Amino acid sequence: MPTIAILGATGYTAAELMNILLRHPEAKITALTTRSDERPHVAAVHPALAGRLDLFLENLTAAEVAKKAECVFCCLPHKASAERIPEFLEAGCRVIDLSADYRLDDPAVFRKWYETEHPDPARLGKTPYGLPEFFRESIRGAQLVANPGCYPTSAVIALAPLLASGMIKPEGIIIDSKSGASGAGRAAKQDLLFCEIAEGFKAYGVGTHRHTPEIEQILTKMAGRNVEVIFTPHLVPMERGILTTAYSLPMNPGVTQAELLAELRKFYADEPFIRVTDALPNTRDCRFTNFVNVTARVVRDRVITVSCLDNLIKGASGAAVQNFNLMYGFPETMGLW
Amino acid sequence: MPTIAILGATGYTAAELMNILLRHPEAKITALTTRSDERPHVAAVHPALAGRLDLFLENLTAAEVAKKAECVFCCLPHKASAERIPEFLEAGCRVIDLSADYRLDDPAVFRKWYETEHPDPARLGKTPYGLPEFFRESIRGAQLVANPGCYPTSAVIALAPLLASGMIKPEGIIIDSKSGASGAGRAAKQDLLFCEIAEGFKAYGVGTHRHTPEIEQILTKMAGRNVEVIFTPHLVPMERGILTTAYSLPMNPGVTQAELLAELRKFYADEPFIRVTDALPNTRDCRFTNFVNVTARVVRDRVITVSCLDNLIKGASGAAVQNFNLMYGFPETMGLW
Amino acid sequence: MPTIAILGATGYTAAELMNILLRHPEAKITALTTRSDERPHVAAVHPALAGRLDLFLENLTAAEVAKKAECVFCCLPHKASAERIPEFLEAGCRVIDLSADYRLDDPAVFRKWYETEHPDPARLGKTPYGLPEFFRESIRGAQLVANPGCYPTSAVIALAPLLASGMIKPEGIIIDSKSGASGAGRAAKQDLLFCEIAEGFKAYGVGTHRHTPEIEQILTKMAGRNVEVIFTPHLVPMERGILTTAYSLPMNPGVTQAELLAELRKFYADEPFIRVTDALPNTRDCRFTNFVNVTARVVRDRVITVSCLDNLIKGASGAAVQNFNLMYGFPETMGLW
Amino acid sequence: MPTIAILGATGYTAAELMNILLRHPEAKITALTTRSDERPHVAAVHPALAGRLDLFLENLTAAEVAKKAECVFCCLPHKASAERIPEFLEAGCRVIDLSADYRLDDPAVFRKWYETEHPDPARLGKTPYGLPEFFRESIRGAQLVANPGCYPTSAVIALAPLLASGMIKPEGIIIDSKSGASGAGRAAKQDLLFCEIAEGFKAYGVGTHRHTPEIEQILTKMAGRNVEVIFTPHLVPMERGILTTAYSLPMNPGVTQAELLAELRKFYADEPFIRVTDALPNTRDCRFTNFVNVTARVVRDRVITVSCLDNLIKGASGAAVQNFNLMYGFPETMGLW
Repeated sequence: MPTIAILGATGYTAAELMNILLRHPEAKITALTTRSDERPHVAAVHPALAGRLDLFLENLTAAEVAKKAECVFCCLPHKASAERIPEFLEAGCRVIDLSADYRLDDPAVFRKWYETEHPDPARLGKTPYGLPEFFRESIRGAQLVANPGCYPTSAVIALAPLLASGMIKPEGIIIDSKSGASGAGRAAKQDLLFCEIAEGFKAYGVGTHRHTPEIEQILTKMAGRNVEVIFTPHLVPMERGILTTAYSLPMNPGVTQAELLAELRKFYADEPFIRVTDALPNTRDCRFTNFVNVTARVVRDRVITVSCLDNLIKGASGAAVQNFNLMYGFPETMGLW
Repeated sequence: MPTIAILGATGYTAAELMNILLRHPEAKITALTTRSDERPHVAAVHPALAGRLDLFLENLTAAEVAKKAECVFCCLPHKASAERIPEFLEAGCRVIDLSADYRLDDPAVFRKWYETEHPDPARLGKTPYGLPEFFRESIRGAQLVANPGCYPTSAVIALAPLLASGMIKPEGIIIDSKSGASGAGRAAKQDLLFCEIAEGFKAYGVGTHRHTPEIEQILTKMAGRNVEVIFTPHLVPMERGILTTAYSLPMNPGVTQAELLAELRKFYADEPFIRVTDALPNTRDCRFTNFVNVTARVVRDRVITVSCLDNLIKGASGAAVQNFNLMYGFPETMGLW
Repeated sequence: MPTIAILGATGYTAAELMNILLRHPEAKITALTTRSDERPHVAAVHPALAGRLDLFLENLTAAEVAKKAECVFCCLPHKASAERIPEFLEAGCRVIDLSADYRLDDPAVFRKWYETEHPDPARLGKTPYGLPEFFRESIRGAQLVANPGCYPTSAVIALAPLLASGMIKPEGIIIDSKSGASGAGRAAKQDLLFCEIAEGFKAYGVGTHRHTPEIEQILTKMAGRNVEVIFTPHLVPMERGILTTAYSLPMNPGVTQAELLAELRKFYADEPFIRVTDALPNTRDCRFTNFVNVTARVVRDRVITVSCLDNLIKGASGAAVQNFNLMYGFPETMGLW
Repeated sequence: MPTIAILGATGYTAAELMNILLRHPEAKITALTTRSDERPHVAAVHPALAGRLDLFLENLTAAEVAKKAECVFCCLPHKASAERIPEFLEAGCRVIDLSADYRLDDPAVFRKWYETEHPDPARLGKTPYGLPEFFRESIRGAQLVANPGCYPTSAVIALAPLLASGMIKPEGIIIDSKSGASGAGRAAKQDLLFCEIAEGFKAYGVGTHRHTPEIEQILTKMAGRNVEVIFTPHLVPMERGILTTAYSLPMNPGVTQAELLAELRKFYADEPFIRVTDALPNTRDCRFTNFVNVTARVVRDRVITVSCLDNLIKGASGAAVQNFNLMYGFPETMGLW
């Protein structure tokens, strides 16, 4: 049974990962790290895990981690991830990186959007993007996988099949996404306080959100042509969930909803975690699951897709475990159903 | 001081209306109606109003209402409004209709979207649309005013000045709106239960929402050309607030954010309730006020406007009192500041 | 593997039961019933279960159910449960009743609090109360088990060990409980609407809540003396969770927090689902788990216990599966960890 | 018209104060202070006030403030208030202190609960406690008023009349209070994040909350005998509102609910902001108002009172304006109705 370390174990993504892995029959968490030296017990940091996991969060070196664990889930912030991951790879660990560091192929694109030099540019473009629905074969047996961003998964699941099949045009795609607050992380910031978020709704990062190039890169691959999108994220006063409403132009103006749904159903026929629905999706229906719900509509001259997922599960830690299952040859749904 | 009746006084819109009018120095609520015969005290229906208003909700005829009040705020459902309002007009009352019944100019459009014959088609096209920012002069002194829908106000405030000034194209406008749950009313429906809405986010009425023709009618007037829009409403797990993100094509591809904001600021320079902001709006900032916050951005080849308001105030009852002030010649902000 | 029917499968308790049982390695759901004749698919009633369970909700007779399932989880309302359960028992099914019908020992007490005659009084007093922490042996192998109420479990877990050990007095116990809205069920009622519950907090059923006699009956058994309590439930604007703050008089005025915690820890030393904590419990820490968190404090002349659980899991469906495990001889934590 | 300064204008209490004073016909806000030197515009700190108030938050000395304003509302933290207030008093300003600093009469009690020496002990015991319902005459014309704590007001309004009239015993009072999150302030703390508070409920400060001695001091005055209470605060996942459930022993065991309500109604007969209700109070009904709702019940051998208010209004800024009205001789409800 693979032994597992989680780097940066204080946040929501790490907590969700532990929650999933504790139920996984082929995973054993053996190390948790933090960049502080206080060495808190996991139950002090994540009280919900009391009695389920008896480990301390420690400030460990890569060598120390590698002695305890063969597989590393990295929940560090971007840049910090790529600064540390090479050590783990050299120590022979497998790594699933939940940060953005290995998602983009091009160091110049990384530099532009993240406003810093990439610490490990040689691995960009060679690291599988951990969206099994599109890149399953490259994930199997990989040593390093870049776990996708939450918004990109929600958008790509809806749009990629329609681009790949030529049903929608690569130009003029508008992606209007809405996320619960857990996507913003657990740092103590005034704008994340309960009394700032409850009973409020806002757009943020309009035109500047870093998931934009990630969405474009994947859609470009799937379309076989350059795709540029407008991506607008919004903050919803709820804990979990992303819903993405995307507007695109049909290649054939007479396309019907039935044809779009048929294409999506065909594309995802064998996928265990994609549910193509007739009804409009609700984030509640995917909450605490690894599912994505997706549907399509035709309104006037546009195709509208609506898709949703749990940003901490299919948008982060569930996808990471799905990738873990693929990397180790376990059934892909193990621990996730 | 005008005496006031509120028809259909059991819902959220009526409650907000009472809340505002009780603080209004030139209004006196003298009658509340309901279609049931139970005759409950207003404090039993709206406990927050206990000690502030001492009236019963009664099943009154138009004649009985007209004896008690000279001005009628109609909070009845669509169709029911237009079935009763003519009686009040004939009795000499002034009427502010918060339903959709007198908003559309064309009975055929009404029939198509509301799937019923309009009960009073002769008044369509002759009733002022109660958005003072665009139709102030026609509201002054009117006997009947059609109070705008909550979504239309949020969309039109952002888009109309840019259409009127020719800064954006009338084609290809996409309006992605998000509303709190009070917009859905107070009827006991399973899908409005706390446990169905909390921690969930969904789209609804995609391509079919009845505010679509209302938005198009106003934008068409402002643009001076036919405008068709894609309108997608969503339900946010909060009580109050609408935020609308709209995507349009600039007439001049090189248009800047500064130019858009300057146009909006010029257009609304004298408007007491419109705040053109540099920052992205948050519904919290307009909560419990009659303000609309609006801003604009340019992203790739698109203009993005973001606007928000309190759906029960500027989206309903606050706008109604603003219209009341205009109809009676009171300062427009009276009771609303 | 036991085949399972769920009676009254439209509500939140039933949905949670399906969610748990679908992950349980020794349970197979084979029938779902409803009292309507519309025969909806489970995914129409509970969209979150789409793709996970392919059954219809049917209006079945006991004989029809008994052909499909050997174990019945009854989620019917009180009285309706006891009207139907005897048929299932006679047909040889095992039954776990999630209603209140078999919890009280005395038909007269039932009549007083539920204001109706009990339909099956002969079984009262002979049916094990499904709180394994206190009645494990009587549950093992039982044919019928009365699953406890959500409030009683939260209160009894904290108080019973201190009563049983004589550390607190049976007189003067005050139980102040707070519950999320899912405890009120899924019926379309105005006072359960999102806009009535969000941003509000209230007491309800003061002095009249039907869980009072259930709490008293269990505490009386554990104390070996008559116990009467003051029980005050409150409604919290959240979906899940109960927190109970109970005030009691110590038998020995000098008792310390350490002694109380030691007693609780000793009592629950072998219990897999009870976490005695130093810190004050938060319902979030038990959300979506079968755990109860409990602690104790001494303030002035009082013992204060604080305990919490997820009302739909340890307070309902999780406890039901724990009982199922005991009845069938499976490991008690199976499917619940 | 009195000119007004608000000290410590960055938090929720100050924002609410501005919101109320901007509608007050006899108040003009002329200065806002902060302890930082960044000099932000009020609209940057409180975007909801954009367009309503055009002032900067400045780091001003008392002398500078006194030049701009004759009345000072102090929203500084405890201790910081009493360190600065004497300067304002000496400069001739009237001061309403929203901190805890002048509420307790005894410096030793202050030292014990706040674990620091009081900076201005000479004024303790001589400063009116700003609860007009009990101390109206001492507030009229005062130069300094200690605005009450939010929890104390909720508890005292319910209990004091019953103690004063001898209907309940001063011994054995248990006060179980529940507050929305705005009571915890606006500082960036992890445990106040949306994702830590939403969908959670907890007790905190059990036996140690600093409002305990304040409650006891007022109840002792009203009872004419020493009163000690058990006070347990809880955190509710909502923004505003406090509900307090208090348990006490009746002096006469046969006392009825009707007698208790009659006593409360008699006591508050002339109070504009106290609503004695038959129904159980809901914090929603007092939200955004200066009202307190209160009722009483008899259950077994106990009197249960339930009372609620908006913690930012009657629990803080509304009460402060009520005191301002009294100090300046304005009608007590001015700006608050």
